[in-house]
Amino acid sequence: MQAVWLDLRQQISVRDIPAPRKPGEALIRIRKAGICSTDLELVRGYYPYTGVLGHEFVGEVMDAPDASWVGQRVVGEINAVCGKCEACLSGRPTHCENRTVLGIVNRDGVFAEYTTLPLANLHRVPDSVPDEAAVFTEPLAAALEIQTQIQIKPSDRVLLIGAGRLGQLIAQTLALTGCDLRVVARHASQQNLLTARGIRLIAEDELPRRRWDVVVEATGSPLGFELARQAIRPRGRLVLKSTYKGDIQVNLSSIVVDEITLLGSRCGAFAPALRLLESRAVDPTVLIAEQFRFGEAVKAFEQAAQPGTLKVLLEPG
Amino acid sequence: MQAVWLDLRQQISVRDIPAPRKPGEALIRIRKAGICSTDLELVRGYYPYTGVLGHEFVGEVMDAPDASWVGQRVVGEINAVCGKCEACLSGRPTHCENRTVLGIVNRDGVFAEYTTLPLANLHRVPDSVPDEAAVFTEPLAAALEIQTQIQIKPSDRVLLIGAGRLGQLIAQTLALTGCDLRVVARHASQQNLLTARGIRLIAEDELPRRRWDVVVEATGSPLGFELARQAIRPRGRLVLKSTYKGDIQVNLSSIVVDEITLLGSRCGAFAPALRLLESRAVDPTVLIAEQFRFGEAVKAFEQAAQPGTLKVLLEPG
Repeated sequence: MQAVWLDLRQQISVRDIPAPRKPGEALIRIRKAGICSTDLELVRGYYPYTGVLGHEFVGEVMDAPDASWVGQRVVGEINAVCGKCEACLSGRPTHCENRTVLGIVNRDGVFAEYTTLPLANLHRVPDSVPDEAAVFTEPLAAALEIQTQIQIKPSDRVLLIGAGRLGQLIAQTLALTGCDLRVVARHASQQNLLTARGIRLIAEDELPRRRWDVVVEATGSPLGFELARQAIRPRGRLVLKSTYKGDIQVNLSSIVVDEITLLGSRCGAFAPALRLLESRAVDPTVLIAEQFRFGEAVKAFEQAAQPGTLKVLLEPG
Repeated sequence: MQAVWLDLRQQISVRDIPAPRKPGEALIRIRKAGICSTDLELVRGYYPYTGVLGHEFVGEVMDAPDASWVGQRVVGEINAVCGKCEACLSGRPTHCENRTVLGIVNRDGVFAEYTTLPLANLHRVPDSVPDEAAVFTEPLAAALEIQTQIQIKPSDRVLLIGAGRLGQLIAQTLALTGCDLRVVARHASQQNLLTARGIRLIAEDELPRRRWDVVVEATGSPLGFELARQAIRPRGRLVLKSTYKGDIQVNLSSIVVDEITLLGSRCGAFAPALRLLESRAVDPTVLIAEQFRFGEAVKAFEQAAQPGTLKVLLEPG
């Protein structure tokens, strides 16, 4: 089968490799897949990985230990877990000590004609949710992880810094809480998507300092972090939603004096994301910038890496 | 009156200055005062301050706008607040935007025969609590701020790094929750105080990594922070209880991936601290290393700055 492969020298290429086969796991034919910032970071060598890239997908089950799954249109949680370690047994399976992660850690990903996942990872996609929306389930779940970790009150002043691929989904889900949301968005295309949904922008240089109850940092840049740190009020909560290259200089004393809560936020549960797609309260399809075939993956990655580009999708062929 | 003064060149000296007089505030005669790490940091120039040092005290009200306070033995919260700013009106008075802080920010402190504070800051000391215990009310309140901010479950594995002046009080209060507490203590004298109370130690080089539900960092050193970061489990809570000199290099990506909550913790409420002193559930007097007169303040500060020294008290004379 055709697969988008990341090699040891961080070069991506389209290869012909054998279709995967894992006893006990479902075999899934990929219908659509999405390129995420993590994929770009893997290509830049932020984390060591070699194998098939990609973890955002919607597909169809072709074979499964439980035949009732065959033919189902599904999305899949990306952490394949042991179910036996302390994290799994304490209700934190996404932090399983023995996990593999689809297209990220020791598990071939979804930029390929077929992938495999344990049945426990799969969620059926409601018929009313098209592939173009379902392919966003994973990043939408990641956006919703914020509300799983902290309570966003309708009366909270919330600042989102960054309105890229993940930022747009975070903006849409935060807006659903009724909170007083402002978004720092750098590119006109990002701004337009937000204002079209009635989500308010705020200019970087007009940001009131020490004012916001909650700040979500979704740029992954040291400058974004600095802006977030200045914006948060004492006792506020600063959510880190992106990874950063290397270490960042942090004034921990000011975090102590201002009693700031800083929290990291990663993967979320799929079921709430699918509910919001089914109810159409969130519309991720507006993010789609371009669609490519797997064969054009190198070009697709170049496109996705352009500043301001939102979601680039891939599909077989 | 005699006062311990920090000048603009970060030199401390004992001066004879006029007794303070602030209309609307209580005049308090100091009975005992304690030297805290913050005092040492002010002398080292970590923060700009000039004036009378000191914020931990027990004293007697000599004059007050409300005569019923006169003659009362009191302790006092250190943040004098405006009551009108957003922080005050939102139930976060210790973060008042216009606050002065006793012996720390724009308000002369308590290493002097007299000090003044608003009546709203004062708490009567129960008769059964001796001066030697009451003088610890402020740091004990700061220790209890942790339990105000986060829930410590009796089943939690809690690691405390640092068993100095504040660390000892944190150890005593954390132990009251019934949690599975271990303390990293460097000095034999610190270790002995803990083991005498049945609090368990753990050696720095035997620390299991990624295991602890809660880690409290009370050393204020980059090494202590690094140790804390390695010890905390994914989704764990890392409480920063000390200030740090300058910036610290932090790997924010690992905080995102492990979904760590990092939170700063400062001043706490006095009433719970006084209750624990009254019930004798906490005994801070075991921390007293030495007592000096204000006239010997330079020597007292030298003693307090020795590694491993716990509480040095000062009193008039």
